[in-house]
Order: sequence, then structure tokens, then C-alpha cells
Amino acid sequence: MFKEYQHLRIPGPTPISPEVQRAMNRTILGHRSGAFSKILTEASEKSKYIFQTKQEVFILASTGTGALEMTVANVVQPKDKVLVVVTGVFGERFVKITKAYGANVMTLNFNAGTAAQPEDIKNVLEKNPDIKAVFVTHCETSTAVANPVEKIAEVVKDTNAILIVDSVSALVGMELKMDEWGIDIAVTASHKALGLPPGLALIAVSDKAWKMIEEHQGPKFYFDLMAYRKKLKQNTTPYTGPVSLVYGLSKSLDLIQEEGLENVFHRHRLIRDMVRAAAGALHLELWVQDEEAASCTVTSIKGNDQLDTEELRRVLREDYKVEVAGGQNDFKGKIFRIGHLGYVHPLDILTTISALEMALKQVGYPIELGAGMKAAEEVYCNDKNIG
Amino acid sequence: MFKEYQHLRIPGPTPISPEVQRAMNRTILGHRSGAFSKILTEASEKSKYIFQTKQEVFILASTGTGALEMTVANVVQPKDKVLVVVTGVFGERFVKITKAYGANVMTLNFNAGTAAQPEDIKNVLEKNPDIKAVFVTHCETSTAVANPVEKIAEVVKDTNAILIVDSVSALVGMELKMDEWGIDIAVTASHKALGLPPGLALIAVSDKAWKMIEEHQGPKFYFDLMAYRKKLKQNTTPYTGPVSLVYGLSKSLDLIQEEGLENVFHRHRLIRDMVRAAAGALHLELWVQDEEAASCTVTSIKGNDQLDTEELRRVLREDYKVEVAGGQNDFKGKIFRIGHLGYVHPLDILTTISALEMALKQVGYPIELGAGMKAAEEVYCNDKNIG
Repeated sequence: MFKEYQHLRIPGPTPISPEVQRAMNRTILGHRSGAFSKILTEASEKSKYIFQTKQEVFILASTGTGALEMTVANVVQPKDKVLVVVTGVFGERFVKITKAYGANVMTLNFNAGTAAQPEDIKNVLEKNPDIKAVFVTHCETSTAVANPVEKIAEVVKDTNAILIVDSVSALVGMELKMDEWGIDIAVTASHKALGLPPGLALIAVSDKAWKMIEEHQGPKFYFDLMAYRKKLKQNTTPYTGPVSLVYGLSKSLDLIQEEGLENVFHRHRLIRDMVRAAAGALHLELWVQDEEAASCTVTSIKGNDQLDTEELRRVLREDYKVEVAGGQNDFKGKIFRIGHLGYVHPLDILTTISALEMALKQVGYPIELGAGMKAAEEVYCNDKNIG
Repeated sequence: MFKEYQHLRIPGPTPISPEVQRAMNRTILGHRSGAFSKILTEASEKSKYIFQTKQEVFILASTGTGALEMTVANVVQPKDKVLVVVTGVFGERFVKITKAYGANVMTLNFNAGTAAQPEDIKNVLEKNPDIKAVFVTHCETSTAVANPVEKIAEVVKDTNAILIVDSVSALVGMELKMDEWGIDIAVTASHKALGLPPGLALIAVSDKAWKMIEEHQGPKFYFDLMAYRKKLKQNTTPYTGPVSLVYGLSKSLDLIQEEGLENVFHRHRLIRDMVRAAAGALHLELWVQDEEAASCTVTSIKGNDQLDTEELRRVLREDYKVEVAGGQNDFKGKIFRIGHLGYVHPLDILTTISALEMALKQVGYPIELGAGMKAAEEVYCNDKNIG
């Protein structure tokens, strides 16, 4: 009966609301039809709300990594000096992509579990006025660190460099004010806080970045932003539009608009705080100690001598139908990660916490059943002014 | 985002598994097509497993009440003496239907919250050898009382009377051995432990009952069991077969077969025990004190001077997206009922309990957050031999 039953609590893909699921079931339209053009352009227009921008938002069939490459492929030429801020696996991914495009890559690495320091970025930019672009990960999914994008934008915006933000696992779950903060290129993907299946990426570009892109020379085709801009003016996409996912996107954006972005942020923050409170009550150590640096979309928890995180994940998956993520690369076996983004209600995370405390007991970790629930419920009740 | 988000915890309709949901989306077939006949007859055949019978099981488009009427319409003639065992609203419904068909209705009423006593039924039958049929509710949905059907069958089976069991809200969630126990007519409906939408009823008939039905005279058409028997031999239904619901039924029966009926019963009993443990820890009073008489598919909890059950239900629904049932008729405002049948996993009921304890706090009922969870999790862990 429960073969497909699962509480999917990884930092994307995420569960999908019934509204979005139904929207995606609409009969396929031709990708060049007027009917699809209308849906596409409306979705593009509605996407401005989540980026908090007046710029066009381009929709393409791609995962998040493709969108990251798009930011590089349209800006970086061989030997260009770029700065990549690295706080984990997805910062490293920017390093790999910019190197693949022949850039002269400088990196700023921050200690695991801590956020990037804007002051350090400022210093590097002052000493290297020839840096063309700064790449930053908004939420570093691999560790659950949230970088202070607003403050980083402040130190970049008056330089010649553009600021490129990977907000794949953050946008909609955490605030990003593209125009007000002065972000030049921001990208996100469908299977994160947008609550869609994987396969769609969104990208928005500032005037400052467009100037750089218009002058850019270098091999690019599928990821050519100029092509997307030209085609969007004609109410279409350069290549086949991902029809069903765009239906879903359009509906997801309606739901976000209806809930209100501020309320969506509040919900993500509340759920993060519930998870963090439960972790404390269950004697678990958070990988990101500083609340300011803790993502609202994913939480990382450390293993220790008494806690084999991979065994815990196995028990959660097999015995409690809860799927949480492990650590990536160097973090494998050191942490586990609870995703709480997109179509996630506080009750969903309470379910996860209940499973977590039973699984902890099952693997022999010394906890009191109910303790995590009490702590998380208190946070929720306080948020509702009950108590 | 959460307009459709709901934890549906009433004693039917119940949530539907994704497997069943998808099965019902199959393209509609003509109800007289060979393809549909195959699905219908297979579903009928597979239904024998849940009734634990070798008899034919008939599938009709009807709610549970229609199925109750079917048991009466094929058996009762004006002035026939029948005995209706009443433990709540659905026992009363048998009284209403048998009276509508002109029966001479004797009733045996049992105190609210207690189960029927087989000994009392035996006494009535001994004093009234002309009783033609005994009507019993397996799970009295209105109060969450489970009647001892096996023991009642023991006292009926050697009389001339047939035993008719309304197992609408029990079958699949609680054991019913039609052949072994000697039940003559048993009925159930789709939107209970079968985990389907409302609209389908199932009915199985013993040889003893068939003899009575074959001799029966009285007005009946849609509910004429002889017509269903005749048409099933021709691999079809007398009237339009409810195509999509039959697709769903077929898939639901596969899932039940796959999980194993014993495991399905165990799961329902476990979840009931979790709810009862949580209720105790939250200082709530169970309507059915005796565990033996407590349904495994629904649990009733009393209100008191400090607990307005209707206000609690409103808070659960509006603030926690959990829908529980209130009391019916005389029980309105006196109890609330948590449904836990069908596609329900222990984690689902933990979610409900978490919402319940927060809602109790919200309405000012003196409880300790986490206490209900601890108690319910302990029951679950004990069941898994953890702890």
C-alpha cells in the first residue's frame, strides 16, 4: 500500500502541490502555438515578482547547473579574471564551469559552516579592479549555509564587476531583491522552492550585465541569452519550450502570488526555526551554528561518534518513509540534510521530526521521544502567539 | 499555496493513494465492452479476498446506505419480523430502512459507547424464532464502537434467521471472515478502508441468504440482487457499471493483496492504539473505554467542560488543516472523531496528533506539548520492537 508513500525532505526535488500537478496535466500545446505563447509570456511576466525585478525573466529547459553555465557562457571569455566565492559544492561548481570556459579564476573559500564575508570580497575587488564577475551561491545546498547576498551586492555594485547569484535552492524560500540590491544575473531552478519537477531554469539579467553580454564573444548556442531575449520579444523560446513544466510554473507563480512572497519567506523561516529547535532538543549539532547564516530552505545536521548519519538516513527511508539527504563529496557521512522548501507546510516538518526522533531512538542515539516535537511545536505555537 | 492542503481524518471519505488515483485516470471504457467486463469480473473475483468468502461479490454504483437498503430490499417483506441491533446512528439507519419496507422491527439498543452483547441477541432469537433477519453494524461509525460480529454470528447461524452485517466502515480495516464466521450478507463501501472515492458498494451473499432472496417478493429494481447475480454470470452489471471507480477498486484490491490482509489489520489496530495512547497522555477521555469494543478505523473522543469539541474541530481545520469529524445527531458537540482507515500510515496519524496537541493548547485545554506524541511514538516503537 505504501510503496510510493514518501515524505520527500531533500533540498530538491520537492513535493508538488495538487494544483501544480493538475496544471501540468493540461493537454500539450504546440510550442509555437499562440495559446502556448500566451502562457509562456505570462509565466515570464509573473516570474518578475519572485526575482523582485523589472527585468525580463527567461525560461529555459535545463537544470540548475545548465543555468549556472548560462551565466558563465554569456559573460566569460578566456583569460577573463573572475572571482568565485566558495562555501561548498555549488561554489566549487562555479569554479569548474568558469575554468571550463578558460577564465582566470580567483576563489575566496570560507570555512565549512560559515557564510561568505562581504568585507573579504570587497578587499579582493579593490586589489583586483580587473575582475569581471563575482559568482556567489545564495543558499549553498551542500552545507545549508546562506550567504549574505544583499551585503555582497553592496560591495560589488559600484565596481566594474557584475554579480552573478546562484539562487537555485534559495529563491522564493529566501528573499532576493534583484533590482533593489543590485544583482546582475540571478538564476533559479524549478525543483526547489518553486515546487515543480526538475527540468526548468529561470534567469534574470540587469542592464549592467546586458552590456557585458552584448559585447561577449565566445562559443555558445543553447545557452545564448541574446537568443532568448530576441525570441521572448516574439513571445516564444529559441528552442522547444518545455510545455508542461511551463504550465506548472504558471500555476506555481499564481500560488506564490496568492500566498504573498513575504508570507512564503515567513513560512520557510518558521519551518527552519522549528527544525533547529527540534535538533537542539534531540541533542543534535547543527552544521551551521549561526542562525544568520542558516538557510531557510535546508538544514544540515552533524553526525558524531554516536550517530552514523548514513545509517540514520537508511532507517528514516526504509522504516519511516522519510527521505532526507546525506552530505555531498567531503561531507558524505559527516552530515545529513533536511530539505524544507517549496510546497512544505509546518505540519509536514512536524511529521519529519516525529520520524526523526523515532529513527534516532532506533539507531540507539540517546534521545527522549517527544522532545523534538515539543520544541518544534513550541516554535510553531509561539509564531501563532499561542502559549 | 495550501488551499487544497488537508489531512483528511474523518471516518470516510478517506485519502486516496497515488496508485489508485492514477488507476482511476485510465481512459473510460464502454460499460458493455469486453475490456471493461474483464476488469469488472477480475475486481469482483479479487473482492472475495477482503470478505474472506468463496461467494460472488457484487459491485454496484451506490453509497453505503444504498447497500444497506439492498440488504433489506431483497430480504424483507411487509410484516416480517426482524431484529436490528442498535449501537448508534447506523444501527438506527437499519431501523429506518426496515420500517420503510414494512417490517415488524424489534430493536436491541446498547448503551452509548458499549458494544452489542451476543447473549442478549441470543435471548431475543430464542424467544422469537420467527425473526427472519438480524441486522448488525460492524463498526458503528457514529460512536467508534466495534461490535463483536464473530460472536454474534455464532448465536445467529444455527437459527432460521440470516445475519446481515453493515461492514461499511470496518471491512479491510478490521477482520470479517464471512464464510468461517457464518455471515449471510455483508456490505461495504468504497470510501472507507478501501481508499476510494465515494460511489461504489460491495455486497456478498451466503447460500442461506440466497434461498431467502430467491423466495423474496416485493418491490425492488435497482437494488435487485438477482439481477446482479444474473448479469455477473454474463460478466457485466445490470445497469451502467461505474467504470472509473471499478478501475480504482481493482488497483486498491491489488494493493491490499500485496500488503496482506493481516498486515492491513495490524496497521489499523496499531494506529488505533497510537491514537488511544495519545488521547490518554493529553487527558482526553475516550468515548469507547473498552479496547475490545474500540473500532480500529475510527476513534471517538469526548468533550467536557473545558473542551468544546466543535471549537477544537474549527481550530484543527482552519489553523492546522486537519479535518476530523464531529458527533452525529445526539452526539453533536459531545464527541469528535478521528478517522484512521484506508490509505493511512502511522506517520499520518502522528501528524494528526501533533496538530491535535497544538490545537488543544490553542483552545486553552491544559496539555503539555509533545506529551501525545511521546505516547503515540512509544506505541509505534514498541510495535517495531524498538526501545
